[in-house]
Amino acid sequence: MTSRPESLDLCHGSEKSVVQPHKQALLNRLNRIAGQVKGISGMIESDRYCIDILTQVSAVQSALDALALQLIEDHTKGCVQKAVRQGEGDAAILELMDVLKKIRR
Amino acid sequence: MTSRPESLDLCHGSEKSVVQPHKQALLNRLNRIAGQVKGISGMIESDRYCIDILTQVSAVQSALDALALQLIEDHTKGCVQKAVRQGEGDAAILELMDVLKKIRR
Amino acid sequence: MTSRPESLDLCHGSEKSVVQPHKQALLNRLNRIAGQVKGISGMIESDRYCIDILTQVSAVQSALDALALQLIEDHTKGCVQKAVRQGEGDAAILELMDVLKKIRR
Amino acid sequence: MTSRPESLDLCHGSEKSVVQPHKQALLNRLNRIAGQVKGISGMIESDRYCIDILTQVSAVQSALDALALQLIEDHTKGCVQKAVRQGEGDAAILELMDVLKKIRR
Repeated sequence: MTSRPESLDLCHGSEKSVVQPHKQALLNRLNRIAGQVKGISGMIESDRYCIDILTQVSAVQSALDALALQLIEDHTKGCVQKAVRQGEGDAAILELMDVLKKIRR
Repeated sequence: MTSRPESLDLCHGSEKSVVQPHKQALLNRLNRIAGQVKGISGMIESDRYCIDILTQVSAVQSALDALALQLIEDHTKGCVQKAVRQGEGDAAILELMDVLKKIRR
Repeated sequence: MTSRPESLDLCHGSEKSVVQPHKQALLNRLNRIAGQVKGISGMIESDRYCIDILTQVSAVQSALDALALQLIEDHTKGCVQKAVRQGEGDAAILELMDVLKKIRR
Repeated sequence: MTSRPESLDLCHGSEKSVVQPHKQALLNRLNRIAGQVKGISGMIESDRYCIDILTQVSAVQSALDALALQLIEDHTKGCVQKAVRQGEGDAAILELMDVLKKIRR
């Protein structure tokens, strides 16, 4: 946001602020996901059939998985690449691996 | 089995209306999930670090997985058991397997 | 195995012996999987590119997932249905859910 | 970067030969996995209970997942870092993302 002198538009230093390169697209996706979650609540409230509800849950899971992959790709292209160039690649990769272990297991 | 006065138990007939046995708990969970999704939007809007965002995404994935498992368990205990007792177990189990293939892939 | 007086060819009683309905097909699949695992060892021994190795690992994961789904389907159609008919459905379903939590997470 | 006397480090050029940094450990793991797969065949041959078989299948899945994570970590630390330093990071990261989509789905 605002002005950033040069280059450091990603992952700067200790504060670790990152302007997501697909920021608006990510926000749109999250909006859709929030809507889907609300839709599932509505299905449960109106006593819809379990299998239909589960089908919607799986759609949200897929949407979240895709979102996570986008974030991982952008993070790797941005922050991790930058860390590698600055000689701090190993730490950045360990951090990435920790997140890969948590995500969609 | 035997007589069921007016239906509202589980999985009745063609309309397939099901009152979830943990209905309120499920709705509460979905509310929390919707809140978490909003939280992720907020993190992206305020340019939080990718890894922190991904950690939150993985928390939502876990919450959704747990929700799906609850739905599957209740569906199996309810609708599938009932179908088995009515001699329609194989169809109900095929339907269940189809959902298991979709869920948390 | 050996003689089985009547019908109870699945999941009988305490000893819990089960002749898998797709026994030979499952054994063939496992043979292929064992071969794929050996193939991966060979790739590592001959210093093949990591991405090619990982592609093979994902093929084995898919093969195992499909095997697990087959076992789950047969178990549900066989043992779980039988348990339901004998009034022991809830216990069988809890056991099934425990396995679903472990499998392919 | 720059000069590498006898090349055999990681990921060189078009032939893409890679000596895995944990080569012997990976081969040992694969040996154990092959043994576990054989064990599952034995369980099916001797008509063991489905749930016990599935528990073993989930153990192999976990072992394969751990193997995949090790390969991904070593690949990222090795080949991807090297590609980034050589200005070919984006292509290497796309390739990595493709594998992440396939692995443990």
